[in-house]
Amino acid sequence: MVEALEKLVESLSRLPTIGKKSAWRLAIHLMERPREEVDTLAENLKNIKTSITICKECFNYSEQDICPICSSQSRDTGVLCIVEKPMDVFTFENAGRYKGLYHVLGGVLSPINGITAEKLHIRELLARIDRRKPCEVIIGLGAGADAETTSLYLARLLEKYDITITRLARGLPAGMELEYVDQLTLAQALNERTSIPYGEKTS
Amino acid sequence: MVEALEKLVESLSRLPTIGKKSAWRLAIHLMERPREEVDTLAENLKNIKTSITICKECFNYSEQDICPICSSQSRDTGVLCIVEKPMDVFTFENAGRYKGLYHVLGGVLSPINGITAEKLHIRELLARIDRRKPCEVIIGLGAGADAETTSLYLARLLEKYDITITRLARGLPAGMELEYVDQLTLAQALNERTSIPYGEKTS
Repeated sequence: MVEALEKLVESLSRLPTIGKKSAWRLAIHLMERPREEVDTLAENLKNIKTSITICKECFNYSEQDICPICSSQSRDTGVLCIVEKPMDVFTFENAGRYKGLYHVLGGVLSPINGITAEKLHIRELLARIDRRKPCEVIIGLGAGADAETTSLYLARLLEKYDITITRLARGLPAGMELEYVDQLTLAQALNERTSIPYGEKTS
Repeated sequence: MVEALEKLVESLSRLPTIGKKSAWRLAIHLMERPREEVDTLAENLKNIKTSITICKECFNYSEQDICPICSSQSRDTGVLCIVEKPMDVFTFENAGRYKGLYHVLGGVLSPINGITAEKLHIRELLARIDRRKPCEVIIGLGAGADAETTSLYLARLLEKYDITITRLARGLPAGMELEYVDQLTLAQALNERTSIPYGEKTS
């Protein structure tokens, strides 16, 4: 009907999680916003493709050769957290508890999809460990099948270094009621049960 | 961390239904798309603010003075459907069953928010009915309190014309199981119960 709107809807509905109806709602919302706001969004979109590159150290997105986290003076350089993708760095940073460095693998092993160890930034990880000698490496991958395999693969690979290798705990997610927990999660939560921190504040 | 990404996230999270986390996910998705695709989205955004205006006849968005629906030869000009906003025209068109014309009110009556009859395109609606003499006017507003009030107001206002005035049926939404239906909907569905179309195909 309205070609300019339909073109925008078409573009928006290519985005993940945005269906045709949401795209229409967004397009019509944008129609009703001041022109400057829409132009700012358009400019910000174009800028990501021109000004962002990959950090040479951790392979996260960055505007400089070395990203602000890798070059920061206030991070704990003794701890290195291996994550799958840039989004995961945001998730960690957003939680605000982690103060070490990251290493973005660029995926997880998935031989069926042709993703072998050579396609990930594993060689660079080993070189980085040799160079920086962290005292702990946290394998910060998810709990899917491929991620678990990759965690085991990395743990094996890092065995030879004299560093602590850890991975994220498995167990009940916060707020979960026991009756809704699946068997595998419950089994893992039981397996990795911990003592109750007596007298400590839980937060 | 990455300023260009953060600026985009900031812009995206101003959009309705898009929180900070979704905005990050979208921004990182866009980072990974080819440049042309991102530029097209940016261009399409800018275009809506430059090329779209309001149809002088029905007040829907349009690139021409008179929108394609109002100027179409294949629509049923004898039926006029009053809707609240442009999004609703999309919803009707998307369902694909309605072949008449529309009239976009630009809102519903809400005295508490200062939206009185003068702020809506009601005067233009009456002028249009005088001019075009449709045989049926469908009040196609939603089922919220303000929309119901507006429907009643319009029905009263249109009484004096020698035309059929209808509104959308109230009742069970498709696929709804009876046990989940709220009392008001059930009461309305009971009130407006219809005979079963015997021998007709249900679709």
